[in-house]
Amino acid sequence: MLSPGVIEALVQVVGPDHVLQDDESCREYGADALRRGHPADAVVFPASAADVSAVARLCDRERIPLTPRGAGTGYTGGAVPAAGGVVLAMERLDRILEIDEGSLLAVVEPNVVTARLQQAVERIGLFYPPDPASLQRSVIGGNVAECAGGPRAFKYGTTKRYVLGLEAVLPTGEIIETGGRSVKNVVGYDLTQLLVGSEGTLAVITKIVLRLIPKPPARATIRAAFRNVEDAVSAVARLVAERVVPAALELIDADCLDALAAAAGRRMTDQDAGALLLMEVDGMPEAVAAEAERVRLACEAQGATGVREAGDAAERAELWRLRRELSFALRAQAPLKINHDVVVPKARIPELFAAVDVLRRSLRLRMPSFGHVGDGNIHVNILLDPQDRAALARAREAERRLFEQVVRLDGSISGEHGIGCSKAAYLRLELSNDVIALMRRLKAAFDPHGILNPGKIFPPE
Amino acid sequence: MLSPGVIEALVQVVGPDHVLQDDESCREYGADALRRGHPADAVVFPASAADVSAVARLCDRERIPLTPRGAGTGYTGGAVPAAGGVVLAMERLDRILEIDEGSLLAVVEPNVVTARLQQAVERIGLFYPPDPASLQRSVIGGNVAECAGGPRAFKYGTTKRYVLGLEAVLPTGEIIETGGRSVKNVVGYDLTQLLVGSEGTLAVITKIVLRLIPKPPARATIRAAFRNVEDAVSAVARLVAERVVPAALELIDADCLDALAAAAGRRMTDQDAGALLLMEVDGMPEAVAAEAERVRLACEAQGATGVREAGDAAERAELWRLRRELSFALRAQAPLKINHDVVVPKARIPELFAAVDVLRRSLRLRMPSFGHVGDGNIHVNILLDPQDRAALARAREAERRLFEQVVRLDGSISGEHGIGCSKAAYLRLELSNDVIALMRRLKAAFDPHGILNPGKIFPPE
Repeated sequence: MLSPGVIEALVQVVGPDHVLQDDESCREYGADALRRGHPADAVVFPASAADVSAVARLCDRERIPLTPRGAGTGYTGGAVPAAGGVVLAMERLDRILEIDEGSLLAVVEPNVVTARLQQAVERIGLFYPPDPASLQRSVIGGNVAECAGGPRAFKYGTTKRYVLGLEAVLPTGEIIETGGRSVKNVVGYDLTQLLVGSEGTLAVITKIVLRLIPKPPARATIRAAFRNVEDAVSAVARLVAERVVPAALELIDADCLDALAAAAGRRMTDQDAGALLLMEVDGMPEAVAAEAERVRLACEAQGATGVREAGDAAERAELWRLRRELSFALRAQAPLKINHDVVVPKARIPELFAAVDVLRRSLRLRMPSFGHVGDGNIHVNILLDPQDRAALARAREAERRLFEQVVRLDGSISGEHGIGCSKAAYLRLELSNDVIALMRRLKAAFDPHGILNPGKIFPPE
Repeated sequence: MLSPGVIEALVQVVGPDHVLQDDESCREYGADALRRGHPADAVVFPASAADVSAVARLCDRERIPLTPRGAGTGYTGGAVPAAGGVVLAMERLDRILEIDEGSLLAVVEPNVVTARLQQAVERIGLFYPPDPASLQRSVIGGNVAECAGGPRAFKYGTTKRYVLGLEAVLPTGEIIETGGRSVKNVVGYDLTQLLVGSEGTLAVITKIVLRLIPKPPARATIRAAFRNVEDAVSAVARLVAERVVPAALELIDADCLDALAAAAGRRMTDQDAGALLLMEVDGMPEAVAAEAERVRLACEAQGATGVREAGDAAERAELWRLRRELSFALRAQAPLKINHDVVVPKARIPELFAAVDVLRRSLRLRMPSFGHVGDGNIHVNILLDPQDRAALARAREAERRLFEQVVRLDGSISGEHGIGCSKAAYLRLELSNDVIALMRRLKAAFDPHGILNPGKIFPPE
């Protein structure tokens, strides 16, 4: 509960229409894509960095938890006010401020929907590659806070590769600028990259300078069906060995294909396919046809039972739409879907799938898996009914063993979703106590009173 | 001066053969490519992270300045022990530990010469793109500490884009691992990217995991002569407008062409050329010829007086060798060469050259300029005789005005060389007091007693 004096002070900053306290709003703005959360005590809608600064100063002085929130499409609770307090909903900061064609950059406010920016720059022949599956709903500020990836990260890298500069507000109220508008900058410490992926725990991002690249003039989308996941993964290894780098290289396993068929009413493959690779090749027109052919040959050499190229842009868009909806299709299959975005070095991918298979069988769980196989970044899901307490306990056991296995494979427990609240308890599996202690000192250097997005990343002491 | 007890303790760690105290060694290991420096009190050669840790603990306890040193090829004093103390020369840590073809990565110790790594990975069809001009002498550890760039950064990005993980030793002795071997990792704060470019002020890097990519199978090198720099820069803008991205896009002005001719005994262009663009296109064979043709047409449309493609690999290598030797060729022209690697957004490049021209004429200075024009990253040099005190004063004035102008153009005072000692006094031109204060808090989070590489980055208080 916030005191009347605090509410009055918040209203002074943003106006009475931009402070919500009703139960429904506090619940709605307290949850993310997990559909679990914690209610806010108030939801505040700033219109500027100055507003954010004033709210931060107030919260810092009064020691009130402050949690920034974009579109709330995250999977690990990053936007959830785990300790209550004020949710800073960035909805009013949703302008594309500038697209600078000559310098190949865009300047945006945090709540610009990712797809909207992509459409705006593609209209003039430019390209913003990061493409999280949520791109029709998620916003750039959230993408930056979590360092979102997506299928195209295989060739183009994740969000961090495109962030040149930031305007951000420290929890103590200072408005800072990091990086800038040039593509190279080695002046002082790289605060920009430190803020990218910091899950809203170090500063509130209020403006973003993004690097753009020329839009690849041609592309081709290829799907290859395989008897099983092993064959599909061997095709990935063969592409790597032959030095072919598609723009995207996605794997979908049999369970996921079934879920998609149930949701879409039609199958992406023949009934008996045990795995699908969905690949996109892009670049100069002269090269795309040749590279698509190399992809086809590599897949066939590893036992692909059917390789087909999308005939036109509409078919290509439909294939990628299906891929993006996969998470929803799985969610329709069971009351609870636990989604983990583990990642391993490319060469260890077969071992990861083998480990998932062992878990699936030994713990009797439905574990459909799909994802950015080119990056070694696999979305391992667990489907279950949370009313089944025994299954839930087995799922928690699977989760712990999966993370342990991933770390043994020199991988990481999160490739793109972040730690948030949902993986904080596992941080010590991957990071040493010395590293966690250093990260806590960095957190304190930004946020001396620990008011910004508390309860995230760090394991309970 | 270090006490006999400290020297004895250092000898205990690394052995008597690996601690030097003679004047010549202390001077030699106290300078970098500036040929200015400060003598060390002792030079210590660790053989392992454990050695580095023991030396750091000792220095931290005794409050002795500790300065890590790679090949000493930097331009801003990063490896100079500005406050004396111990220089930690990493020469014995020079092994390529692993090249993992299946995962497209390499693991190296810090003192691997950049060119040596490149040759090793290119032999098996892989590619490590960063190519600072010093690559035949500079080492990966120094490249990482400074976030080195090079011509290919235009297409491939600078060193930071290739660093997946680090082993590093904190000034207080803890050995930490950051990032890892997977290409995506959002577990906790991005310490890896914070260490890249931190100029050896936060931790001593002892092992590096580098991302590799497939080697582009084909390439072409094109040089285009122009009447003047303005025409050459307009060709760059045209390439950007036509969405052509060469792998490298370098500009060399008339003064630099003269210096190269004097050093090499032959000209890269006709006598009357006022500027040269040196461009490389790479990728799939099918695309390279087409893209080279688009480059040629764009240059000719902007008034190129001669466009020629290198006929074979030997000619291509010779062109790039000349480009890399440019800095030496200029150094032969005057007793003192001051070199600034300023950077501006692409669209502001003409304004940057116009500003340099004003400085050159109004302050009567020789200011040959060249560099990574595609990135807006121009090496603006000032040639003079330091005995000419009036010229030296004018050069300092030019430097200050250049930096002010660059910041006005939304640029940055360093694109790849770092701040070190030589630009620390100018940091406030680009960064606000709040940002500098935050950076000091980060520094303290790593180095509570300020022993690691003191006197760098931060302006004198």
